[in-house]
Amino acid sequence: MRNLLVVLEYDGTDLCGLQRQSNGLTVQEVVEDALCRLTEAPTKITAAGRTDAGVHAHAQVINFFTASRIPVPRWPAALNSVLPRNVAASQALEVPAEFHARKCVHSKTYLYRVLNRATRSPLEERFALLCTTPLELGSMREAMRSLLGKHDFSAFARREAGDQRSPVRTMLRADCWREGDLVNFLLQADGFLYRMARSIVGTLLEVGGGARTPGEVDRLLHTGERARAGATAPPQGLFLAQVEYRCPHLQACFGRMFP
Amino acid sequence: MRNLLVVLEYDGTDLCGLQRQSNGLTVQEVVEDALCRLTEAPTKITAAGRTDAGVHAHAQVINFFTASRIPVPRWPAALNSVLPRNVAASQALEVPAEFHARKCVHSKTYLYRVLNRATRSPLEERFALLCTTPLELGSMREAMRSLLGKHDFSAFARREAGDQRSPVRTMLRADCWREGDLVNFLLQADGFLYRMARSIVGTLLEVGGGARTPGEVDRLLHTGERARAGATAPPQGLFLAQVEYRCPHLQACFGRMFP
Repeated sequence: MRNLLVVLEYDGTDLCGLQRQSNGLTVQEVVEDALCRLTEAPTKITAAGRTDAGVHAHAQVINFFTASRIPVPRWPAALNSVLPRNVAASQALEVPAEFHARKCVHSKTYLYRVLNRATRSPLEERFALLCTTPLELGSMREAMRSLLGKHDFSAFARREAGDQRSPVRTMLRADCWREGDLVNFLLQADGFLYRMARSIVGTLLEVGGGARTPGEVDRLLHTGERARAGATAPPQGLFLAQVEYRCPHLQACFGRMFP
Repeated sequence: MRNLLVVLEYDGTDLCGLQRQSNGLTVQEVVEDALCRLTEAPTKITAAGRTDAGVHAHAQVINFFTASRIPVPRWPAALNSVLPRNVAASQALEVPAEFHARKCVHSKTYLYRVLNRATRSPLEERFALLCTTPLELGSMREAMRSLLGKHDFSAFARREAGDQRSPVRTMLRADCWREGDLVNFLLQADGFLYRMARSIVGTLLEVGGGARTPGEVDRLLHTGERARAGATAPPQGLFLAQVEYRCPHLQACFGRMFP
C-alpha cells in the first residue's frame, strides 16, 4: 500500500462541507466515491482541515492508502475524470506511511473575500460576501494585530458538544488588503477552531464599519466571551487557501502563495 | 421622458446572450421585464454591444427612455430588487436625449481569461477557458502587435447573412499578461465584428501553443480568409470589460480599469 497525498480544489457552493454526513453531498463522499470507482477498493481519506458547508478550497490536502498501480503523476487526471465538476485534484505526491494530512499540518491559511461596494455583483456573488458599508482598513488591521501569537480563541469559535480539545491556537499571520472593490482577509494559524475564521471576519467587519473599536478584538480574546463577538460571516467568502507541512515526513506548502 | 444610462454586470453562463430571442432567456428580456415591473410601462433598451450566449459583462452599457420618477441615484438598487441574480445594475446616469448607447461608443474593451495549467479548476471553470498547453506570451504579444490599427477583420469574424456593414475596425489596444495560472487577453477597439474577440483569441492560443507562427496573424488580416483563422474560443472566458464614450453628449468610461 502506498500513502498518497492529493491536493484538492473545490467550489463549495453546492457541497455540505468536507465531512461525510447523511443530509447532503460532501467533499469526503464525492472523493471517496471517485477513489472507489478508480481503484475498485473502498478507500478512506484524511483531510488537512474540515471546511463547512459552502466554504471553498484552493488547496485542501488529503491523504489515503491505496494498492492501486496508477503512476503518481497520472493521479490528478485520473481522479478528475471521475470527480464531479465542482471538485478537482491539482497535484499528487507519494509520501511516507507516517504522513497524516491533518496531524502533520504546520499551518493553514484561510482567505476571506468581501466585495465592498454599494451594489450586488453577479460575477462575485458565488465567491465573496457583499458588504455595502464602506470598510476602514486601518482599524481592521489594528484589530488584527491583537490576533497574532498564541491565544485562547474561545470567543471566536462555536463550541461543539463533547469537544475537549484545547481552544488555544497560534495565529501566524493576520492581514487585510484592498484589490479593486474587494477586501481580502488572510488568516494563517497552526489550527482553527470550529467557525473561527468566519467568526473573526464577522467581528472585523463590525470594526471596519465603525460599529466596534479595534480594541474590542483584544478584549474579546481576553474575556473569551463568545456571545460578545460579532456575527459569523457567511461561508461563500471563505477559502482554504494554503496548507503547509514542516514535519520529518514532508516539508511542503500547497495552494495559493501570498506575498 | 428622461434618457437614462445604466451600467449592467452579468454572469452570462445561463443567458442566451444580449439580444432578445425566442429560444432562451437573454439580457434584453430580463432587463426589459424588470423595467416593465418597475415602471409599469413597456420599455425598450439599447445596448453598447451585443454579447453572445455565455459571454459575461463587467460593464455593459444600456440606455432607455422612461417617464418614471424614481430618482436617478435610486435606479441601481431599484432595478436590482427585480432583476434575477445573474444580472445587476451597478450605476445609473441621466444623459441627453441624443445619447445612444451603441451609436455613441468610442471604444469597447473585451477581456478573455485563460487558465493555463495541467488540471481543470472548479473555482475558475465558470469564468475562464482551460488551456493545458503551456502558452508562450512573447509570441502571442508579437502576433497581437499586428492587430493594432485600422484593418479589415473579416478573417476573424463570422459573417452574418445580409450584413452589409464594413468589416473595417480600429484596434486601439491588444495585450496579454500572466496573473498566476491565468493568462489575460485584452482587446480594445472602436467596434467588434460578430465573434471577432473570440476568433482572435482562438487564433492567438494556437500561436501561443506553437501551432502557428506570430506572422500568420498579420497574413490572416491581409488575406481576410476566415477559413484559415483558428477556432473560435468558447464564450465562458470572455467579458465585456469596459465601454468608453467621447461624444458631445457624454465623455465617460464605464467598467474595469486596466493599467
